[in-house]
Amino acid sequence: MITADELNLVEDVLRKAVISDIDLLSMASDHLIRSGGKRLRPRLVLLSYRAIGGKNISRVVPLAAAVELLHTASLIHDDINDHSDMRRGQETVNARWGNSLALLVGDFVFVRLLNLIVGFDSRVIQVLADCCTAIVEGETLQILHLGDIGMTEAAYLAIVTQKTASLFSACGELGCLLAEGTEDQISALKDYGLNLGIAFQIRDDTLDLVGKSDTLGKPVASDLGQGKLSLAALFALRGPEGARQVLFSKDPAQATQLLRDAGALEYAMLKAREYAARAKEALSILPGSEAKAELARLTDFAFARDQ
Amino acid sequence: MITADELNLVEDVLRKAVISDIDLLSMASDHLIRSGGKRLRPRLVLLSYRAIGGKNISRVVPLAAAVELLHTASLIHDDINDHSDMRRGQETVNARWGNSLALLVGDFVFVRLLNLIVGFDSRVIQVLADCCTAIVEGETLQILHLGDIGMTEAAYLAIVTQKTASLFSACGELGCLLAEGTEDQISALKDYGLNLGIAFQIRDDTLDLVGKSDTLGKPVASDLGQGKLSLAALFALRGPEGARQVLFSKDPAQATQLLRDAGALEYAMLKAREYAARAKEALSILPGSEAKAELARLTDFAFARDQ
Repeated sequence: MITADELNLVEDVLRKAVISDIDLLSMASDHLIRSGGKRLRPRLVLLSYRAIGGKNISRVVPLAAAVELLHTASLIHDDINDHSDMRRGQETVNARWGNSLALLVGDFVFVRLLNLIVGFDSRVIQVLADCCTAIVEGETLQILHLGDIGMTEAAYLAIVTQKTASLFSACGELGCLLAEGTEDQISALKDYGLNLGIAFQIRDDTLDLVGKSDTLGKPVASDLGQGKLSLAALFALRGPEGARQVLFSKDPAQATQLLRDAGALEYAMLKAREYAARAKEALSILPGSEAKAELARLTDFAFARDQ
Repeated sequence: MITADELNLVEDVLRKAVISDIDLLSMASDHLIRSGGKRLRPRLVLLSYRAIGGKNISRVVPLAAAVELLHTASLIHDDINDHSDMRRGQETVNARWGNSLALLVGDFVFVRLLNLIVGFDSRVIQVLADCCTAIVEGETLQILHLGDIGMTEAAYLAIVTQKTASLFSACGELGCLLAEGTEDQISALKDYGLNLGIAFQIRDDTLDLVGKSDTLGKPVASDLGQGKLSLAALFALRGPEGARQVLFSKDPAQATQLLRDAGALEYAMLKAREYAARAKEALSILPGSEAKAELARLTDFAFARDQ
């Protein structure tokens, strides 16, 4: 539905957005951008635009690139805070260029977003402003809850909603706004994005525990090692007393076994499935279209993905 | 010329801009904002607006607050990279809350700027976008030149122009844009800001070498300790062979004495004075007004300041 040519338009804007007279900034920004990623967020913007009947895809391309820049900037800063060495099977910016430069590279990628939103109306800028705030607040909450074994499921979901789902929701809203959708349609696509984002992050956090490092592109159970508690871990912690020790034993294989035995992985996947179903349901008010069908398929993709 | 009430409007917007449901973000942002600072950048926006005949100061207040937020965010990230413990006589955000949270607090203060620019036109947003890029590029160049004793004066000035003077220049431009000044007036106020900013940073870097820690609000010669070379240090390095050893001896008193003996401090202050004079000269095309007189006085203030 979104053609390779259309996605290439986004790639072009992305690459040009991070060009700098300072080679290091261009190179380090490009390092992460070129390392792949699924471009899920730009796709969501483009598909939402199409699903509402938008015809002029080039109009929405800068925003599709802007949300990917925002995502990229937040990954660069996250990797510093998480002391991560690998992402998408490559060295992180901090591992390669050190923390000080990585901090500035993240800032650079983020500020370049401003160039992409020049010319858009107030409501578009407000959506991005709110979403940026939510992401930073979510990341902050996550740090404040590191190692907090008493964290509730509600607190986990609040973090996931802010740090991840707010951007997915903004993608739906932006595409719809640009296509001049009705308030009901905007509301539906925000709702779709929000629930898809939650499903996605639950799945991502669960994969961290059970994936293989070569498909994950990073070490297994790295979140747990940092004290980041996923839905599965929180479920297991509500179980037998010994769970805490096993989970934090720094033995990923043992931790994974515990999570399987406790039914924790199954529980987390069930929750992810619930949110994905809600995302699909939110699409129901939209008129039938190829774009709508593709948005629905993405809710399945939230499961099939193995990296 | 700018009344206390008018500056209080800026303070109100600043304080409200960094309110968050997450207490830590509000508290840590407020920590630096309330620690004072001269509010020079907001003043420049307000005075530029007035000097062009702008009457509705409340219209320009959000931008005056936005430039201060941008400055604040960049200080928070700088202090992380510089491992600074003290600023304005208080603990830095990183010293008090640690690097990970400080990184996010800086991000938070920066993203809140987006809320303040909603509703302004494209040109205003483009000025801020360009200025944000320049600041990050300047900071990056500075890191790339740490300890580079072969750095030229031109390279030093390029760093200062990007990391500091670009924002001063943007302040002049923003005030003038909002007052609907002519292109000549915009050009004059940009030029004023650019030169004032360079003078200011040269003076600031020189004070780092000769000030007293209680008026500086931070340790003496902390820049030198990090390998940041000021104009005075570069001048001294062009002198007798032994200068390098003395400058990097980690003995601030000895380093300062060398800089005095070599005439390096005098040289730097002379350069600062030259740029301040150019700033004042740039004002000549503006009609006479109290605001213009105040802008001219600020170029003297660039010298009188002792912190």
